[in-house]
Amino acid sequence: MRETYREQLESVIEDLVSMSESVKVAVRDSTRALLEADDAIAERVITDDERLDRIAEDIEHRCFSLLSLQAPVAGELRIVVSALRMDAELARMGDLAAHVAKVARLRYPEIAVPEKLRPNFTRMAEISERMVGTAGRTLKSRDIELAEALARNDEEMDDLRRSQFRLLLGDDWPYGVEAAVDVALLGRYYERIADHAVSMGRRVIYVVTGAVPAGSAQWP
Amino acid sequence: MRETYREQLESVIEDLVSMSESVKVAVRDSTRALLEADDAIAERVITDDERLDRIAEDIEHRCFSLLSLQAPVAGELRIVVSALRMDAELARMGDLAAHVAKVARLRYPEIAVPEKLRPNFTRMAEISERMVGTAGRTLKSRDIELAEALARNDEEMDDLRRSQFRLLLGDDWPYGVEAAVDVALLGRYYERIADHAVSMGRRVIYVVTGAVPAGSAQWP
Repeated sequence: MRETYREQLESVIEDLVSMSESVKVAVRDSTRALLEADDAIAERVITDDERLDRIAEDIEHRCFSLLSLQAPVAGELRIVVSALRMDAELARMGDLAAHVAKVARLRYPEIAVPEKLRPNFTRMAEISERMVGTAGRTLKSRDIELAEALARNDEEMDDLRRSQFRLLLGDDWPYGVEAAVDVALLGRYYERIADHAVSMGRRVIYVVTGAVPAGSAQWP
Repeated sequence: MRETYREQLESVIEDLVSMSESVKVAVRDSTRALLEADDAIAERVITDDERLDRIAEDIEHRCFSLLSLQAPVAGELRIVVSALRMDAELARMGDLAAHVAKVARLRYPEIAVPEKLRPNFTRMAEISERMVGTAGRTLKSRDIELAEALARNDEEMDDLRRSQFRLLLGDDWPYGVEAAVDVALLGRYYERIADHAVSMGRRVIYVVTGAVPAGSAQWP
């Protein structure tokens, strides 16, 4: 019975890791839909997000069962409580990727992001995608150094966001209000995906050490 | 001992209700800071948000203790698991109110929202504030009808958001790119506060009935 319980717990973690893989793909695909104005890919990301929501619901139910039937304590309880939180974070990251895809679809066949901003978004998307991947690997390996490295990635994200605003609010923004609004909201979506990845890294630190990491203004 | 446990559970709920009161005040104050360009109020909202984050952390620790020491099952387990989620939602709503305050502070002594949009934002803020209040009362009374009414409020919020975009993207937007970017992001912050209130209402339905409410695309 004890073995079955451990297996159930491991299976929840594995499914969260696999969910983070799916979110990573969603971030990559939504970016491609956005920067190449590909509405078929946009549609797929939006449809797949519903599947992700169902997976998240299933994981939550299994965490609930674990709590109910096994009454875990200490380290194992930390894992289940953190799994509940990370499950919600991953579902939210999926929603944000779908938001990006929806902007792509709305502006199709135009490309929502003006040419001057595309390198900025390409880089933002690369970082977000890598951070989601790192969050998943961190969860799998419970590697604290990797989890701490997630916070460093976020600084580059902040820099990119700042340079985005400089371009947007410069005197020579030639693309009009609609493009400005799209860029502001799209930048926000990527920024939030990165925030959630950082938060997942902090959760892993908490699972392994039992301590809430320092400087967690965004905690929980 | 059993009584103490029930008391602890009730005290977590009471603190979530009181946290929702604080968030309601934060939404009201940040809106005042925004629409009256009052940087003293903005500063207070931003400072108070750190206090809210600490309260959220404390509630999470107490939920963890309840799970660890009392191993609740069935309805009581649903309450603790939902308390963990609502705790995170309220903390996030506080962050969003602080984001509104930060925009107010950034544009001070100017008013970030152009005159034409102020009635729209006044209404958005009223609805968000009322929804946060309703979410708190729902949690206290476990009144399902009230929880379901939360979803109806959200529709008016969506309408306001749409009319905001119509104004922003009309041919006669005279306020420039900076104001457009501020309006787009500010509208997003209020929209998200309302989303979280809806989600809290759904959590209450789940606590009372044990069933995930229908149409919960945003679940969890």
